[in-house]
Amino acid sequence: MSSSGLAKTPEPPYYAVIFTSQRTAGDHGYGKMADRMAELAAQQPGYLGAESVRGEDGVGITVSYWKDEASIKAWKKDLEHTAARDQGRKEWYSAYEMRIARVERAYNWTHKG
Amino acid sequence: MSSSGLAKTPEPPYYAVIFTSQRTAGDHGYGKMADRMAELAAQQPGYLGAESVRGEDGVGITVSYWKDEASIKAWKKDLEHTAARDQGRKEWYSAYEMRIARVERAYNWTHKG
Repeated sequence: MSSSGLAKTPEPPYYAVIFTSQRTAGDHGYGKMADRMAELAAQQPGYLGAESVRGEDGVGITVSYWKDEASIKAWKKDLEHTAARDQGRKEWYSAYEMRIARVERAYNWTHKG
Repeated sequence: MSSSGLAKTPEPPYYAVIFTSQRTAGDHGYGKMADRMAELAAQQPGYLGAESVRGEDGVGITVSYWKDEASIKAWKKDLEHTAARDQGRKEWYSAYEMRIARVERAYNWTHKG
């Protein structure tokens, strides 16, 4: 994740994993795991960047960007990631939705001056 | 947007518009515009749902879901939406990135009990 919070991604096409979740109350180790997963994802082959926001109501959106579907599948199988996912279903999330999408076009804009 | 904050979307394929932004300081009419745009988007043909979160650091992610690319293009051309976009560049955003993606697979999970 870039310091500005917006990921610097290459020209499309590439892939996005859109993960929208509703957190349960309390931390229960969630923050530490989330930091670790962000760190670990960034080390995977094919990782292009990520953007992540959680609101005060516990709804969060994390979008991670990947070179191709093979990179996403490999990261899904990572053992530490799998363990975090299992723990997420037991404790951290009340609901989530994951969408795998192919980014076809992208535009960015930055205020000048 | 559903009351839970997670959009109920149909089986893929469909399209996602991933809009990530950095807000400037102060409201300056932003909140009212954001509510109006959410309301207006939901009335457009091909609209399937949306998820939106903004964090305390001013970074926000809004993902809106659409039946096809034609729906996205029509909404882009809406006059009130166009005016809001122009105002956004003048006043509300310091930077943003918009990505148009084709959702190919989706999984949802809800805690039972």
